[in-house]
Amino acid sequence: MVNKSANLEDATPRSAATRQAIMATAERLYAQHGLSAVSNRQIGEAAGQNNTTVVSYHFGSKTTLVREIMTKHSKAIDAIRQRHVSAAGASDDVRDWVRCLVRPVTEHLESLGVPSWHARFAVLVLTDPMMRAMITDDSLTRPSLQHTLRELGNCLKDKVSAQVRRERGEMARHVITHTCAERERMLAEGTARPVAAWKHTARTLEDALTGLLTAEVSHR
Amino acid sequence: MVNKSANLEDATPRSAATRQAIMATAERLYAQHGLSAVSNRQIGEAAGQNNTTVVSYHFGSKTTLVREIMTKHSKAIDAIRQRHVSAAGASDDVRDWVRCLVRPVTEHLESLGVPSWHARFAVLVLTDPMMRAMITDDSLTRPSLQHTLRELGNCLKDKVSAQVRRERGEMARHVITHTCAERERMLAEGTARPVAAWKHTARTLEDALTGLLTAEVSHR
Repeated sequence: MVNKSANLEDATPRSAATRQAIMATAERLYAQHGLSAVSNRQIGEAAGQNNTTVVSYHFGSKTTLVREIMTKHSKAIDAIRQRHVSAAGASDDVRDWVRCLVRPVTEHLESLGVPSWHARFAVLVLTDPMMRAMITDDSLTRPSLQHTLRELGNCLKDKVSAQVRRERGEMARHVITHTCAERERMLAEGTARPVAAWKHTARTLEDALTGLLTAEVSHR
Repeated sequence: MVNKSANLEDATPRSAATRQAIMATAERLYAQHGLSAVSNRQIGEAAGQNNTTVVSYHFGSKTTLVREIMTKHSKAIDAIRQRHVSAAGASDDVRDWVRCLVRPVTEHLESLGVPSWHARFAVLVLTDPMMRAMITDDSLTRPSLQHTLRELGNCLKDKVSAQVRRERGEMARHVITHTCAERERMLAEGTARPVAAWKHTARTLEDALTGLLTAEVSHR
């Protein structure tokens, strides 16, 4: 069996469309049922493919499939982040750099429409004991995020030690990831109104994370 | 097959010991491999039981087993929280009530020794698409937590609207749950020093969450 994942550039339009259909279907099924509960065969069938080995043919392993779905979104988020980083320029206001953390995620999710699955899928990938060992969160290595974190660190360095900055950075990541997943679920289930939902979420996150990152450090 | 889960009071000492062994083994295996990746048969074998249906005999379904593990910890956490709530008395200091959120969790995890599995197990239960629909987080209904949340709400009500308080309360829960799971993993893997690790985590969480909950609300 040939693993085509390295040959996307050479793919025919039809095969590229099949890959996209598989990725979209897999993301939805994983988000609905859990990563371990869904087989490649189920994904192929739900994606309307008669050939039951189509997922293996196009992606090789489940790990590769999951990684490619994550990378696809991470590229889109990065493109949005580059614009926010340019807009923030040389700001030394914590909130401007918190915005560069939050808005790329909420704006990307908003662009996916309702229902979207990506935020819930990402939570599963980042918390799954097997998958988290095999999949590095690709978005963490992108220059636009590293620039944001460096500028945020500079804004905070007179107030908070490097260790506490790191710990709070992790907390901020948890807040963004899980708040967005909950919001995505509420929108999909109709328990949140879609109008301006993501903009509201973004503003709420920015306020809260600015407070979290700049909080007084107690010495007891 | 008889489901004995309702008859814990009548259980013989030997059967109670078997139940405890199954719960401890299941928690570890789930945390290591994921909820869907572990079968009842594997749990029975790893718990040293020759009878491969022992898990079904004592717990009926996986959902019941998972629920009983969660309840066991939630009872222990509640007992610690009652002490913190008494100590906080009639305080109107946000930090005192944040402590009532954080310390019961970190103190319980500390009491489990290294390695513990509960924090990582809880993350899986709370994020699993199937399980989260069947298992209500039992700790949310306990009076000691409800008292804490009410007092926290009173401290914040002049500063933050009810909706934003609810949203930030959710964020605080994500931060505690996922920070503790990461810390538990680092302790288990030896990448964090155990000495005072949980007390350090508690203090870091209290500072950050006090900042998050009391953050300025922007109106744009």
